[in-house]
Amino acid sequence: MSLADLPDAIDLSHHLSVVARARRVSPLKSLQKYFGKSGIIQLGGGLPNPTYFPFVSLSAEVMVPESFTISPQPSSFEWLWKFLGKEVPYGKTTGISIPKYPTAPDDLNLARALQYTPAIAQPQLQAFMTRFVREVYQPAYANYAVLVNMGNTDGWNKALTTLCDPGSGVLVEEWTYASAMAAMIPCGVSPVPVRMDAQGMRDDSLRVVLEGWDEVQRGMSRPRVLYLVPVGQNPCGSTMTAERKRRIYDVCVDFDVVIVEDDPYYFLQMGAYVPREDRPSSSPLCGEEARYIASLVPSFLKYDYQGRVIRLDSFSKTIAPGSRLGWFTCHPVFAERLERQGETTTQAPCGFSQALVIKLLTEWRYEGYIRWLQGLGVEYRQRRDFFLDCLAEEFHLRITPASGGVWGGTDVYTATAKRGEKPGVMFSFVPPTAGMFVWMTLHVENHARFSAENQEPLEMELWTRLAEAGVLFCPGWMFAYDGFVDAPDGTVGSSNTPGGHFRVSFSNAELGDLRRAVEIFARVLGEFFAEE
Amino acid sequence: MSLADLPDAIDLSHHLSVVARARRVSPLKSLQKYFGKSGIIQLGGGLPNPTYFPFVSLSAEVMVPESFTISPQPSSFEWLWKFLGKEVPYGKTTGISIPKYPTAPDDLNLARALQYTPAIAQPQLQAFMTRFVREVYQPAYANYAVLVNMGNTDGWNKALTTLCDPGSGVLVEEWTYASAMAAMIPCGVSPVPVRMDAQGMRDDSLRVVLEGWDEVQRGMSRPRVLYLVPVGQNPCGSTMTAERKRRIYDVCVDFDVVIVEDDPYYFLQMGAYVPREDRPSSSPLCGEEARYIASLVPSFLKYDYQGRVIRLDSFSKTIAPGSRLGWFTCHPVFAERLERQGETTTQAPCGFSQALVIKLLTEWRYEGYIRWLQGLGVEYRQRRDFFLDCLAEEFHLRITPASGGVWGGTDVYTATAKRGEKPGVMFSFVPPTAGMFVWMTLHVENHARFSAENQEPLEMELWTRLAEAGVLFCPGWMFAYDGFVDAPDGTVGSSNTPGGHFRVSFSNAELGDLRRAVEIFARVLGEFFAEE
Repeated sequence: MSLADLPDAIDLSHHLSVVARARRVSPLKSLQKYFGKSGIIQLGGGLPNPTYFPFVSLSAEVMVPESFTISPQPSSFEWLWKFLGKEVPYGKTTGISIPKYPTAPDDLNLARALQYTPAIAQPQLQAFMTRFVREVYQPAYANYAVLVNMGNTDGWNKALTTLCDPGSGVLVEEWTYASAMAAMIPCGVSPVPVRMDAQGMRDDSLRVVLEGWDEVQRGMSRPRVLYLVPVGQNPCGSTMTAERKRRIYDVCVDFDVVIVEDDPYYFLQMGAYVPREDRPSSSPLCGEEARYIASLVPSFLKYDYQGRVIRLDSFSKTIAPGSRLGWFTCHPVFAERLERQGETTTQAPCGFSQALVIKLLTEWRYEGYIRWLQGLGVEYRQRRDFFLDCLAEEFHLRITPASGGVWGGTDVYTATAKRGEKPGVMFSFVPPTAGMFVWMTLHVENHARFSAENQEPLEMELWTRLAEAGVLFCPGWMFAYDGFVDAPDGTVGSSNTPGGHFRVSFSNAELGDLRRAVEIFARVLGEFFAEE
Repeated sequence: MSLADLPDAIDLSHHLSVVARARRVSPLKSLQKYFGKSGIIQLGGGLPNPTYFPFVSLSAEVMVPESFTISPQPSSFEWLWKFLGKEVPYGKTTGISIPKYPTAPDDLNLARALQYTPAIAQPQLQAFMTRFVREVYQPAYANYAVLVNMGNTDGWNKALTTLCDPGSGVLVEEWTYASAMAAMIPCGVSPVPVRMDAQGMRDDSLRVVLEGWDEVQRGMSRPRVLYLVPVGQNPCGSTMTAERKRRIYDVCVDFDVVIVEDDPYYFLQMGAYVPREDRPSSSPLCGEEARYIASLVPSFLKYDYQGRVIRLDSFSKTIAPGSRLGWFTCHPVFAERLERQGETTTQAPCGFSQALVIKLLTEWRYEGYIRWLQGLGVEYRQRRDFFLDCLAEEFHLRITPASGGVWGGTDVYTATAKRGEKPGVMFSFVPPTAGMFVWMTLHVENHARFSAENQEPLEMELWTRLAEAGVLFCPGWMFAYDGFVDAPDGTVGSSNTPGGHFRVSFSNAELGDLRRAVEIFARVLGEFFAEE
């Protein structure tokens, strides 16, 4: 469908918070529309002359888009090197350079990138993001806006301020990103949990929560905002299917809810885990761009014919967290208010970062960046496989259908000790198909000292023993909505319990450390469950 | 006085806003204290491996600290070049380079700078800022904290959120920075104007406002926060003396007020304007570091024996606005809450920026940066002198003592036409001794169409004519507190009027453009006042 055939967004301005409505166009910035007028002498703004920027040129050595293979051989030299060494050879590089003054007027240059600018992207970066959204996510309405921000933490905080008044609630998955809750709670905004299964938030549970909303019992009006991490969910690692997204979207249309799609792991989609004994020795991926993009689960934008999705994209996982660069794709009315907010808070993202990232992307070209993303996905797949292979070496893993709960609808791996007498299940997990995390349910109910009140203390006792033995996992209670607020009545979304989970990240550690961590985990866990 | 002799800050935690009190330590970040533990295997955080950062090394050509002379010769080649050309030769440069992986563990490197980090500075930058504050500002208490931020816009927004609840007021100068008001007003925080004179906010007027505060009449409780720009004030260009700062501080102690010192122009101090005919042909400055620092008007920190000053410093005017880098110096309790706020909003400032700025400062060394700042001050002095010399060429300037108002206590330059019949004063101003701005009072009362209601329309009519003729000044109404809110009863701080002022910036334009702008201004202004 061409853009001309798509509808425009519907009016959603009633979703703006009191603060968002009250923002005015920063009066100084309103002069900026004259800045570009040819020949005008600008003595209005408080800008330093670029002569006084000490940076005369900036350059970098950057990796090439093909740096990571998309046809991995498990025994390849590169992979072995990673296993052995601390530093990885980065192979071929290429040089990029940004001068202070442009050779052609529209060229990227430091005199402009390092100057005060409106709270929007440099034009070259804006063009790149806009093309990327159109080709990769294909929003279902015509007049969406693309607006730069400083990554998804900044993006969520700005969306929150733009949409939510104190005393309101935000629908979240029953386990959700701890920092997202840490942003909303001090502002008087409460997380409202909705049940999950193996695909993340359940649309039937969402409908039940919204349909049965009792303002008096809940102490607040029905939530108008939904926050989720649909791909490689944080912390559970689950990934939402296209069909589930469509259903969630439909519920949000019925109840006039705005969806904030926090999606930093979108390009870390890696397919299903296949145990090592069944895995083909080589599994080349299709390098063809259109087929690669079609292989990814669609964004909520693909179903968003009304403009009620605020999508958060980030360069943190695809280039580097320190770039502090990401973007909103959303309704133009939301984008306008978000830009106003930027003017009096963050201003435009760092000029060094914008210049270096856009120069890298220009050097790589659009197709090169897509190729880079494919390579990253394969890297993460190999990391996940390696980590789970290590678990399979240290534990007896058995596959059984989940009885329900957060893993309802899929098979679960249960782990028992390979050595020792104790036969009980110590932990269980579902191999993620995207992202950075394995979410482990600790079967503390099989521990001799278990009691209903003792789950969280047992989790933290085990966590501390592991830390003392030299391994840090992330304790699960941090991601429980009731890790922050008292649970509501419990009829909905009460399947999470504060204790008995670890989030384990396979994204960062060197592979040798990852293996050692699993060995230590096996020893400590065995001793922990062997207690009488 | 050595640090050991200084008192610690007093308890000021009652100044924290409701939101600031409610912030918790972001639970994920609390793990970070284990990150640096030797040998530990970290699978807790959601960090990508630095292998996946495509930047292998970063480098830059940078100017040397001595790039700008501190012994200017008005006819020097360099200065003439600026007058003639669009691009300025930057003379000697030196190369800096930052590798991805460190050669020594503590070396600055991209693997660390581009990774997720706590919402604080890279250690090398932290050390630099800490030394700088200690040696340049010399706070009067021992346990102050230095915390990085993303420049003064971010700094003020965070301070505002940390100190102010909706419904409260912030004391400001009667003309104040428009964006500072644009940040507070949507949050339900009102600017409360205090009279100014040629030194900025008057301590006697501040005391009158606070002593006579009537909660019922004002509709809010007595303000607990004061915001000001003490050096090269925005928009008036005035600079507060040491004595005035001490007096303001004492009033704030008496009434338990926290001072936010927004001081981006501190190093653009340039001394008094001397008309060209009386100016020595050469005016070398003392290059010696300690004497240079002693020559600067002290910061409020110098008088802050209780910890009630939140000072905002920025690299925007000394390195580049696009660095989006600055810092707080403040009470440790405020700093802790500001850091918590950073964790769920901006996170740490951009890693590219931190790495490049600290590498530059390391290359220059502390003494080199001080030398760079001296050179900048001289550059701005020459720009100011050039602009005012141009005014003197186009207008008859006369010096007369101010009758009161914002220029009370100093001499004012009044401008009449050199040509034509009309004898009336068209505008007046006081040459700034710091910063980027000349604040012009337009004497619209001498215009044929003047009436009491017509001030702002006349200002905007003249502004539009100037813009059409190719020159942009900044209209003064933007900086009036009543440009945003209704004025209070008027007994205090009512001397400002919405119309009849321009803020003119001499900081950015090429000198030829600056001269042309003054010529156009003279022609347009002459025609405007010649109307019958």
